Amino acid sequence: MNTPNTQSHLNDLHKQLVGLDSQAIRSRIRSNSYQGHTAGLASGVLQANLVIMPEEFALDFFRFCQRNPKPCPLSGVSDTGNPILHTMGQDIDIRTDVSAYNIYRYGKLVNSTSDIVDIWQDDFVVFALGCSFTFEHAAQRAGIKMWHIENNTTVPMFRTDIDCVPSNRFGGKMVVSMRSILKDQVQLVSEISAKFPLAHGAPLHVGSPEEIGIADLEMPDWGNPAPIEQGHVPVFWACGVTPQVAIEEAQIPIIITHKPGHMLISDIDACAENPIIQSKTKGD
Amino acid sequence: MNTPNTQSHLNDLHKQLVGLDSQAIRSRIRSNSYQGHTAGLASGVLQANLVIMPEEFALDFFRFCQRNPKPCPLSGVSDTGNPILHTMGQDIDIRTDVSAYNIYRYGKLVNSTSDIVDIWQDDFVVFALGCSFTFEHAAQRAGIKMWHIENNTTVPMFRTDIDCVPSNRFGGKMVVSMRSILKDQVQLVSEISAKFPLAHGAPLHVGSPEEIGIADLEMPDWGNPAPIEQGHVPVFWACGVTPQVAIEEAQIPIIITHKPGHMLISDIDACAENPIIQSKTKGD
Repeated sequence: MNTPNTQSHLNDLHKQLVGLDSQAIRSRIRSNSYQGHTAGLASGVLQANLVIMPEEFALDFFRFCQRNPKPCPLSGVSDTGNPILHTMGQDIDIRTDVSAYNIYRYGKLVNSTSDIVDIWQDDFVVFALGCSFTFEHAAQRAGIKMWHIENNTTVPMFRTDIDCVPSNRFGGKMVVSMRSILKDQVQLVSEISAKFPLAHGAPLHVGSPEEIGIADLEMPDWGNPAPIEQGHVPVFWACGVTPQVAIEEAQIPIIITHKPGHMLISDIDACAENPIIQSKTKGD
Repeated sequence: MNTPNTQSHLNDLHKQLVGLDSQAIRSRIRSNSYQGHTAGLASGVLQANLVIMPEEFALDFFRFCQRNPKPCPLSGVSDTGNPILHTMGQDIDIRTDVSAYNIYRYGKLVNSTSDIVDIWQDDFVVFALGCSFTFEHAAQRAGIKMWHIENNTTVPMFRTDIDCVPSNRFGGKMVVSMRSILKDQVQLVSEISAKFPLAHGAPLHVGSPEEIGIADLEMPDWGNPAPIEQGHVPVFWACGVTPQVAIEEAQIPIIITHKPGHMLISDIDACAENPIIQSKTKGD
């Protein structure tokens, strides 16, 4: 437990988690035995972005997600003040079961922690939003190459000129991620991703970055550049950084999110029609 | 305009609306030229159930819908106090653009009206939830008979023993509608309805009413009985009466809904990936 969290040590720990089920992984995270990223873990279940804020702002953020379902695919919302996210899995305590958290005050990142037990508030509402890991797994299984995964970089992300549909203080421009896809696989990758609306669904745009306000593909606003190789075209998906930008600009006294890449691992099947575990909550 | 609203007069008026687009129909409704039901109108666009309540209760109801997406498929949520439902169409004024409203006080129906201009409150939040009209049109086009439509009755609806996932004061049992389907068309009707998650999606159950707590198919809790003819099986879908029951039991000072069958006609394509009209709100 007291081993230093060096990158190579984290990589070793990550390898030990591959093949474990969601509950076993969350248990390791809860006991602080693992504080690394969750890419490649618990393949086949829904992983989610996390946004936690006081109830005062929750209705507006809820509306923002409802109005912008492609960048903000809502997969779960807690009861006010209740850290147990009972619709997304067995015994998920949102204060401890994510490997790393970012804490924002008035839109500014002030701290990263491995749990939020001490700063939990009775008026907090937890929002879980689907992420693209789910569809990337499915695309790879279908033989579609993901350059950023194979090269161990972060997918390039760009601010577009597409307005989100605003909700009171939440608004801003849509952020997209870009993947370079073989021309004759564009149809296939579109069909596969469309099957995962909670992982941002079908692409937002194919082909011309300038049409959605992106000036230079080699200069992503977040992540690392990725080449458009011969015979490939750039394909753009709505991205979970969109709500991140919206909440930073909303100037809220306190917001807690997961640390990028360190997602909530749910018990929900990635292919489930709905992200709700009814049997587990029946009779609660 | 002063012609009496007899049933045969309403039927004549209804015929005049068939073939008109959403905006033309809403315009007739707004001017009180039509106060009848909306079945069979504006085929191809999303029709929606309406639930309006004070903001105080809106976050809990929002969570109830998120947790029970099959009976409560959310298609739109207004800003607090704003009667213009700008994400669902051009110039929809929710106070006048539905043909008939029911007003509930503390769960009890107290009045039905043709507009709600005089009782609109600055703290009202409007929820629009998809309805099954959309998928019934698609099923009929695929050659699947809908007994209740052909016989001009109301689809039979039953209270099941399936618990909704509760959200504070909102809860209760799931209500389902039943359609009698030819055995060899069950797969087809399931696939068609699954394509319309905002019209309750795929069936909840096929075949055995007793397995979901229904004692007698000839005694529906709402609507009219429908026969299970030779070679047919009963197929059950989650039903929009579920939130209706939940709001009646929640004992809220004032809630306004559409009158059953008198839906909000949106501008949203029934097959749209998401129920949001982004272009119309851009730059708002």
